[in-house]
Amino acid sequence: MRVPRIADSTVARLCSYHRILEELAQEGRRLVSSRRLAERAGVTSAQVRKDLSYFGTFGRRGLGYHVQRLHEELRAILGLDRRWDCALVGAGHIARALYSYQDFRRRGFHFVAIFDTNEELVGQRWGEVEIQHVRRLVPEVRRLGVRLGVVATPARAAQEAVDLLVAAGVTGVLNFAPRKLNVPPEVHLRNVNMAIEFESLAYSLRAAEARGRRRRAVPVEE
Amino acid sequence: MRVPRIADSTVARLCSYHRILEELAQEGRRLVSSRRLAERAGVTSAQVRKDLSYFGTFGRRGLGYHVQRLHEELRAILGLDRRWDCALVGAGHIARALYSYQDFRRRGFHFVAIFDTNEELVGQRWGEVEIQHVRRLVPEVRRLGVRLGVVATPARAAQEAVDLLVAAGVTGVLNFAPRKLNVPPEVHLRNVNMAIEFESLAYSLRAAEARGRRRRAVPVEE
Repeated sequence: MRVPRIADSTVARLCSYHRILEELAQEGRRLVSSRRLAERAGVTSAQVRKDLSYFGTFGRRGLGYHVQRLHEELRAILGLDRRWDCALVGAGHIARALYSYQDFRRRGFHFVAIFDTNEELVGQRWGEVEIQHVRRLVPEVRRLGVRLGVVATPARAAQEAVDLLVAAGVTGVLNFAPRKLNVPPEVHLRNVNMAIEFESLAYSLRAAEARGRRRRAVPVEE
Repeated sequence: MRVPRIADSTVARLCSYHRILEELAQEGRRLVSSRRLAERAGVTSAQVRKDLSYFGTFGRRGLGYHVQRLHEELRAILGLDRRWDCALVGAGHIARALYSYQDFRRRGFHFVAIFDTNEELVGQRWGEVEIQHVRRLVPEVRRLGVRLGVVATPARAAQEAVDLLVAAGVTGVLNFAPRKLNVPPEVHLRNVNMAIEFESLAYSLRAAEARGRRRRAVPVEE
């Protein structure tokens, strides 16, 4: 299968189409038009067609896409038809939330190793995984062959955490710590910024309020 | 100040510029070019200029932007110069992670009410906030005048949670539950999907692997 280099924003949209197709399949739908798929994803139908065109031809003009087939194609394209083992650094609240999130496991992401520096946490078990001291990280991650690491430490410990993950052979890192991390160019880094979600919503509320005020300010004929 | 209706993706980029300007100010920089700002944000400089043009004219050709001034302008544009009270529904791991995230408070987001249906959690305190039963949600959220709600319940309880928030007068909702929610058109809803971050990263790793395999498959002259 072709795995072209495409923009992160395209990958995110493909993930969203994959999710919507899953819902459509659960709703018992057999076919879906690019217009309907676009509507549910909040994009234009031209965008849907363009995003899918990277991977070949799907669907038929006037007929739409076969829900089940496109779902499976996207699943394979996105690499969700296999298991991804992940190592978690930091065993605080964010780590716990990620670990408990059922949806990850269903999509093939398994946390197989958890590390922290806090001696009170070391030795505790989350499900089948025992929290280990960060000094065990490099040999353990190497032994397990894990290539996906998650940094969920406080900001001050995040660079050290990612350095250890990289030293252990990890090639993809998700960073939940609120600071910029340096990684070698061959390592893929994604920064997850939960504050941006709050900020974007706050802007929408403020914009709606401002429009409401302007409307109210228009004099009304009585 | 003008608060134009702009795409969510633009708002997200503005939030990212705001964050970068904060870092630049901490690094002691006084001026920044649109090229440099663009580089750090991972976009083109034309994009930076276009995004900022919605709000007037910033910076001077050849001189760049004044870091401190643009930071303050963006802060006001994004509504981060005020306090946003939030209500949390669900007091599980995701809620706890959000509540503990220091960065939110620093940006003006305060969780002033937390609700759950679990009687063992009701009455517990997180900092200054006591967890209350969901049946207290509507009167409490109304009394506090909260307009921003966060759904952090399991998927099956999420629609009921958002219905209560809307009934209580909330106009913006962040949904962390992995299911689609229905809200009236005047309510702003943002779905936060942490799985998409993992999925995007997995695609990048797979794409890099596929390229590596192709490179290795090329016969080498000896």
